[in-house]
Amino acid sequence: MTTRTRRRFLGSLAALAGGMVLAAPAVRGSGRPRVDALRLRRRLEGLSQFGRPAGGSFGDGVTRVGYSDADVAGRRFTMDLMRAAGLDPRVDAAGNILGRRPGREDSLPPVLFGSHIDSVPEGGNFDGDVGSMAAIEVVETLRDHGTVTRRPLEVVIWTNEEGVAYGNGLCGSRAAAGRLLPQEMGQAWNGVVKADAVRAIGGDPDRIEQARRPLGSFHVYLELHIEQGGTLDRDRVPIGVVEGIVAIDRYEATIRGFANHAGTTPMPDRKDALVAAAQLVLAVRQIVTSEPGRQVGTVGQLSVTPGAPNVIPGVVRHTIELRDLSEDKIARLADAIRARARQIAAETGTEIDIAPTSHHKAALATGWVQEAIEKAAARLRLATKRLPSGAGHDAQMMALLGPMGMIFVPSVLGISHSPREMTRWEDCANGANVLLETVLDLAG
Amino acid sequence: MTTRTRRRFLGSLAALAGGMVLAAPAVRGSGRPRVDALRLRRRLEGLSQFGRPAGGSFGDGVTRVGYSDADVAGRRFTMDLMRAAGLDPRVDAAGNILGRRPGREDSLPPVLFGSHIDSVPEGGNFDGDVGSMAAIEVVETLRDHGTVTRRPLEVVIWTNEEGVAYGNGLCGSRAAAGRLLPQEMGQAWNGVVKADAVRAIGGDPDRIEQARRPLGSFHVYLELHIEQGGTLDRDRVPIGVVEGIVAIDRYEATIRGFANHAGTTPMPDRKDALVAAAQLVLAVRQIVTSEPGRQVGTVGQLSVTPGAPNVIPGVVRHTIELRDLSEDKIARLADAIRARARQIAAETGTEIDIAPTSHHKAALATGWVQEAIEKAAARLRLATKRLPSGAGHDAQMMALLGPMGMIFVPSVLGISHSPREMTRWEDCANGANVLLETVLDLAG
Repeated sequence: MTTRTRRRFLGSLAALAGGMVLAAPAVRGSGRPRVDALRLRRRLEGLSQFGRPAGGSFGDGVTRVGYSDADVAGRRFTMDLMRAAGLDPRVDAAGNILGRRPGREDSLPPVLFGSHIDSVPEGGNFDGDVGSMAAIEVVETLRDHGTVTRRPLEVVIWTNEEGVAYGNGLCGSRAAAGRLLPQEMGQAWNGVVKADAVRAIGGDPDRIEQARRPLGSFHVYLELHIEQGGTLDRDRVPIGVVEGIVAIDRYEATIRGFANHAGTTPMPDRKDALVAAAQLVLAVRQIVTSEPGRQVGTVGQLSVTPGAPNVIPGVVRHTIELRDLSEDKIARLADAIRARARQIAAETGTEIDIAPTSHHKAALATGWVQEAIEKAAARLRLATKRLPSGAGHDAQMMALLGPMGMIFVPSVLGISHSPREMTRWEDCANGANVLLETVLDLAG
Repeated sequence: MTTRTRRRFLGSLAALAGGMVLAAPAVRGSGRPRVDALRLRRRLEGLSQFGRPAGGSFGDGVTRVGYSDADVAGRRFTMDLMRAAGLDPRVDAAGNILGRRPGREDSLPPVLFGSHIDSVPEGGNFDGDVGSMAAIEVVETLRDHGTVTRRPLEVVIWTNEEGVAYGNGLCGSRAAAGRLLPQEMGQAWNGVVKADAVRAIGGDPDRIEQARRPLGSFHVYLELHIEQGGTLDRDRVPIGVVEGIVAIDRYEATIRGFANHAGTTPMPDRKDALVAAAQLVLAVRQIVTSEPGRQVGTVGQLSVTPGAPNVIPGVVRHTIELRDLSEDKIARLADAIRARARQIAAETGTEIDIAPTSHHKAALATGWVQEAIEKAAARLRLATKRLPSGAGHDAQMMALLGPMGMIFVPSVLGISHSPREMTRWEDCANGANVLLETVLDLAG
């Protein structure tokens, strides 16, 4: 979208949003405030324009990779909305957008809430966007109602959560948690050094440490997000209360057999690396599902060498990824997989090596924040379900600095990172209202 | 090797070969002729220079791809040897090298025998070379003994058997059998049109049909070749009598599941294409080995889409290759694999399609030729074993035109298409003597 088109669009959106405010039952002091569901929807639809495929519509999803032109345009749109909600947005050194609303006791640490607006390539219009637009909607609703909280509020739009650019996500929240790697600003992606990408969105890569937040710099961090899995949708529960963000352990398995002529090597003489790997792929699934719980295990990447129809596979390499809230459990599962791999190697005449490649710790949501979310949902007569987040979120970085809680809303059929990603408008509004209620409760 | 180096090498080889003839017990008329084992070895070592890795030795194998400079140099070396054996080599329109030795009844169809000298990249020094050098050695031995056969003899060195160049092998023998595809001469490989490649080795692509041999144009076709498998080596049998060249059926299996986020999709909700493919890979092996026989089944190529550690595989494609002398048997095995695939699809919530991609018919060796080879070996007190050829050979094309038989010699550890390919010198000489005895028997 060109700047001119964008301005025209924003102008008509502002008119539309204004009309909504007039139409909505947002009378000052009239009981407990509720978000404006239609306004929230219009803003999600508005944001979806930035990165939409040419000639497409809302259902065609979005490609708004962090630091891209579409991201820059979406960030401008978002900052305009923050201004309209009475916030004065600033961009920190890492490129995070922050907007503060004063409280009655303004020196208290704020209630911090928000999400991200960057997407994966050919992603959907709800991942990150729902939490970001709802955070602004919460502030605007409070303004409409003339409500001032005891604690200050702070809305945050994190930079490059998906990590498509530069291959490492949670960029803004990692900077805030002091977890950026020293070499990251020097990395190149698509011919652009990361420092320049950060500069292009208004950050200051030379003073990146200024984005770091001290421990205790917020009272609580809250994030509304789509579930991305299908649990809430299948169980018809409108609100998920996140227990924590799972630990993720990745391994690379290397299976070495012996490549030989597929026509001249009898079956009993073969050391077929793929036959061994197939057993290991099935073992991962069998072991992961052999005990109760929500742990998952995935072999997502696999390559065969030499890879010809008439050559017995000599080497197979594949990933193994294990996720669970309990790091002990995934360590135990990995041990069981290794033991089974030793059996398979012995039975197939191959060598199997399973090497760890990365380890991400679990981030547990704070107990009293989970309870506050449940109480807020109960006041809104919305059913809840506790569940882990199988995907990573900026919230896991904030959990390193202070209390943290996340609200999930249903993803239809559990589809995510796809143009087919969908969360019903009603569920978006329910999630925003639970966020609003929780903010009101925890900000006093 | 430069032309100058080659000339020098040929000169010293000629001296060496001459010395060998003097040293060998090749007295005219002194009983049944036997090949000169040392001369055969020196010629295999001589041929190995063309395409040898720079600075390497015999054990480092060879890269002598059809039509390459190394192939051209190796062909020149081979034609020089043919001349030294009293043959007058000619190159046919397809680039095959042919050398005729008159018989006492010279109008009878000849006994045709030979092999190929092209190799795969990083191949060994025995595949094709043993049969080619032995064919010339047979003629030279007969000349040393002053033996003239009743039927004429014809030595053939087939062009581009391996089919590395232009991706389709048995080029020379297919031309002889009238099985070249009309479009082949127009194909490009490494920037060279095949017609020009054929021209570069002395062929005439514009008259390629002149390479075609009519039915009955030979009395019998014989080929000595290394086994490439490990049966003879393991069983310590020096001579294999080939029952036929197996049929080869290839299929592409496509398994469609549903790609989804590996963190947010619980195990029971997954439609993991790789979990289904792993079961199919194991089913191929299980079904192929479920009945007695020498049939083989291989999954050599497999790809996973989208292929990320944190995404559940959505689509897997893999090859299935089945080989056996009996086309009925491999058709039955394919039916069983399809039936099992339907079960796997139902159990895993995936769709599995198995489409045939190519079918090569079996070529059975002629019964009386197999018996002649066995009798020849018996006269030499060499044990034999009948076995199928799991690899393709030029002999399968000749089987379309007339009687055919193949003699196998052991491959150490069954290794082939590798610098580690090895056949003991003693076994090379045994094979050459069985070829000689069989030629004498069948040429009268």
